[in-house]
Amino acid sequence: MSNAYPSAPSAYEFPLLIKQLLNRAKTVSLDQEIVYADKKRLTYAELFTRINRLANVLANLNLAAGDVVAVMDWDSHRYLESYFAVPMSQYILQTVNVRLSPDKVLYTINHAKPKVLMLNSEFAELVKNYQFENSSIEHIIWLDDNDMTVEGVFGDNQSRVVGEYEALLDSADSSFDFPDFDENTIATTFYTSGTTGDPKGVFFSHRQLVLHSLAEAASLGMLPNKQGVSYGDVYMPMTPMFHVHAWGFPFTATMTGLKQVYPGRYAPDTLLDLIINEKVSITHCVPTILQMVLKEAQDRNASFNGLKMIIGGSSLNEGLAKAALAQDIEVYTGYGMSETAPLISLTDFSVDEPEMTEEEDISRRCMTGKPVLMVDAQIWSENNQSMDTGKDNTGELVLRAPWLTQSYLKNHDAGIELWEHGYMHTQDIAYMRPDGYINITDRLKDVIKSGGEWISSLEIETILSLHPAVSDVAVIGIRDKQWGERPLALVALKPDCQDTSAEDIKAIAKQAVSKGIIPKYGVPSEFKFVDELPKTSVGKHDKKVMREMYGNQTEV
Amino acid sequence: MSNAYPSAPSAYEFPLLIKQLLNRAKTVSLDQEIVYADKKRLTYAELFTRINRLANVLANLNLAAGDVVAVMDWDSHRYLESYFAVPMSQYILQTVNVRLSPDKVLYTINHAKPKVLMLNSEFAELVKNYQFENSSIEHIIWLDDNDMTVEGVFGDNQSRVVGEYEALLDSADSSFDFPDFDENTIATTFYTSGTTGDPKGVFFSHRQLVLHSLAEAASLGMLPNKQGVSYGDVYMPMTPMFHVHAWGFPFTATMTGLKQVYPGRYAPDTLLDLIINEKVSITHCVPTILQMVLKEAQDRNASFNGLKMIIGGSSLNEGLAKAALAQDIEVYTGYGMSETAPLISLTDFSVDEPEMTEEEDISRRCMTGKPVLMVDAQIWSENNQSMDTGKDNTGELVLRAPWLTQSYLKNHDAGIELWEHGYMHTQDIAYMRPDGYINITDRLKDVIKSGGEWISSLEIETILSLHPAVSDVAVIGIRDKQWGERPLALVALKPDCQDTSAEDIKAIAKQAVSKGIIPKYGVPSEFKFVDELPKTSVGKHDKKVMREMYGNQTEV
Repeated sequence: MSNAYPSAPSAYEFPLLIKQLLNRAKTVSLDQEIVYADKKRLTYAELFTRINRLANVLANLNLAAGDVVAVMDWDSHRYLESYFAVPMSQYILQTVNVRLSPDKVLYTINHAKPKVLMLNSEFAELVKNYQFENSSIEHIIWLDDNDMTVEGVFGDNQSRVVGEYEALLDSADSSFDFPDFDENTIATTFYTSGTTGDPKGVFFSHRQLVLHSLAEAASLGMLPNKQGVSYGDVYMPMTPMFHVHAWGFPFTATMTGLKQVYPGRYAPDTLLDLIINEKVSITHCVPTILQMVLKEAQDRNASFNGLKMIIGGSSLNEGLAKAALAQDIEVYTGYGMSETAPLISLTDFSVDEPEMTEEEDISRRCMTGKPVLMVDAQIWSENNQSMDTGKDNTGELVLRAPWLTQSYLKNHDAGIELWEHGYMHTQDIAYMRPDGYINITDRLKDVIKSGGEWISSLEIETILSLHPAVSDVAVIGIRDKQWGERPLALVALKPDCQDTSAEDIKAIAKQAVSKGIIPKYGVPSEFKFVDELPKTSVGKHDKKVMREMYGNQTEV
Repeated sequence: MSNAYPSAPSAYEFPLLIKQLLNRAKTVSLDQEIVYADKKRLTYAELFTRINRLANVLANLNLAAGDVVAVMDWDSHRYLESYFAVPMSQYILQTVNVRLSPDKVLYTINHAKPKVLMLNSEFAELVKNYQFENSSIEHIIWLDDNDMTVEGVFGDNQSRVVGEYEALLDSADSSFDFPDFDENTIATTFYTSGTTGDPKGVFFSHRQLVLHSLAEAASLGMLPNKQGVSYGDVYMPMTPMFHVHAWGFPFTATMTGLKQVYPGRYAPDTLLDLIINEKVSITHCVPTILQMVLKEAQDRNASFNGLKMIIGGSSLNEGLAKAALAQDIEVYTGYGMSETAPLISLTDFSVDEPEMTEEEDISRRCMTGKPVLMVDAQIWSENNQSMDTGKDNTGELVLRAPWLTQSYLKNHDAGIELWEHGYMHTQDIAYMRPDGYINITDRLKDVIKSGGEWISSLEIETILSLHPAVSDVAVIGIRDKQWGERPLALVALKPDCQDTSAEDIKAIAKQAVSKGIIPKYGVPSEFKFVDELPKTSVGKHDKKVMREMYGNQTEV
């Protein structure tokens, strides 16, 4: 600060620390509820006390500032408590992706080197042997909903187990004075579920998460009540808390004092029960989870009563969007990735909406959305020049925002690549419309290059998804002597449409060609019917596996 | 940041600079409109170009970083342009309160020492002589809507006048590359219109204003559409742009890409015309302005169509709130002060409202509101201890927030007092309800001490305002031999109720005693009828003047 404007000596500079997110809720939301499935209900007043208790439990473990505390749990109030108590104590929260293969789970733990592991008993088998090797883990806190005892899992070898979570909290002091420290202190770390190579660690500071929370509250608050978030909404995650801070909502919902519902392990019947019984009004998930709950509600003949649902992690296709709207879900798109904390863009809605057809409405809900507040999103050409709007200016989406990982954990080279030329490279291929909508047409590595032209696998998938017999579809590039690459469509048919032919599906792509929506060379050369498409741990299409399975064996 | 988590060398740290507020609007709001009364309409695309042009005009004046650029103008697109171009060029924007007495206006200019003055021709007389004395002002930019020429005002002595604003912009280059710099750089300064002593200067950094904008967007976004702000709303200030950044809305509305309307000099007919013709949906003002526009609409038999209006600067009484609601204004309270940038608290609304009576609804709209996001608001006892909730725990409201002035400009002693014990002292006497509502009962210096008990002048005013004959009322303490002080009520009656007696007004206070709302000693000992109550430059009751006029002459 310039010398002409000195601060008073005792003026408070207000570092952007996660504890500051609680200021309003501590005054106005003490009676608000937090629900853990059918297992526990607590008030915010109790949450704040429990955060203090957890901090005291951790303080007894003689950790140093910057030590990592890992959590392996389903979505629970315990997880929420760790979101606050761990970073507010100046430790780093590692949210372990328990959906990865056991090898990769252990890889991420070996890489981040947590000293403490908060372990749900259901994952004990997974780390049972690991804990007795050259482990960084000095202390295990036992989380349990199933009366599984430590003895039952670890036998005599339980010296690292500090105790059971609830018992530890009960015996800990209920007050804790969280200190101030540098707002650039790292608060969280987790790993991309990247479809190629080893998972990469990303990390976020207190400042970044506070700014993400404020911008998320502002960006969702600015949407009309029907789609956005307001005081009085009820939040439940359907993207797990180990996946990119569950979109940052546990921080944002606590800051704004919303009622929160944590569903434990995701099962369609539990999710739907909670949505109905707890009057959940805002959630977010991948398309796979949406499909699951739609089916569950159909079976029960239940309605979603205007549940607001942001789809992210994988693109929402128009067929699925239409089905969700028909079942009274206000579905739309949010875009982000592990590297972006994650919120980058959202579908736009206004209290003063222009007239639009149903097709236009569905189409905008399936685009990548408009950048949220503070985000500087640009489309760059191959020589790193910012390009104008319009489909002809398709290139890589690059970003600046106050909440992007500043590198990869212990992987400096990948960090340098991520931030080449001062913008974060998403590796997503997109164009920007003049009205500010980003439209991602493909992943950099999923683009199909046919005869010198780029074919967007995503665009072809969207069109094929509109065929009434299709339940899921993916398009990948396969080697082709003449064209270099040609698109192959992998199609899963609905159970009662198993006799549909490839020609039948192809017809809808040809129709799109005749209407000028896609080029002629975008019609897949081949269609393969499969029972199920390979998916990653977070429910995305696993195109790496698809290419391994189908890409190299076929020559068209 | 800890060494274990190094940033990539070219990772962008994202300083919180005012220019970053424009990121989203530059992509999605280019066609949105900005209206200056009946004088000019421009798009955001034009706004951004004009900001660049103004920056180029200023760059030609050989200023140094940290130099002050003062503005004397009514609310206009020019003022909006200066809100961005001046701080984004690393100069400091001084928003001169043109409603102060000429002496005080000159005092604030002499004190802040601007090098450039953007001067509306209507204020030229005021500074005409001043500019030729020992002035810091090296350059005057001439703002004019009335075809007043520089020659007409300054005669031959116009060497400091750089040119007319529009002509200067026209001849300036339309692109400007705003640099990055330290986010703690001071962006704005202005002066309290304090009722005692010389005006005091406050100042705010880029970081503070960015955080204020985000928290304001989030806090108003979280309110339901009916009261809050959403994409699609139309904003117009009715608190002037020289007064605490017009509540920060010009920054917030531009960040969120709202249509904005700037009304020039405030006149009831112009304000109402713009509200109706431009479909203004969100505004803010002091009670005096609300009274003016209510009367104007009554005269015209016009409706406000649910206009959302935040009242601040002076407390909203229940009689006025009721009248505004009856004319279809969604009126409620925001609280803040010059020292707080200003937003601190807002009336709370929810999409899931509890049942309440009309009285309860009006009552909450007139309280000080609940703290907004990130604000740490406490009630302190006289020995600086944080107190519990409840009316029995009335004390001084003290604050921490990311956007509080860190001292007073060139007044270190007052800054130390402001920040005693690490919290900012508001000098407002308040209590906090268990549900988080702050209720300010008085200014520290306006409290009436009668027989060892504190009487809240505000509380008595609220009750008297409910009498149908009362148009305005203030209660002050006057010396009393027996009790030390006793309350005197100064009452302005409505034109058609001039024959109302003091006993008649007193009856409503006695009724409040019988219902246990106020103590018996709270009933004013004396009532004086006046034509008009003394007001400050920003329309607040001027109790200092009232005490001078009435406080010391009477012994009850």
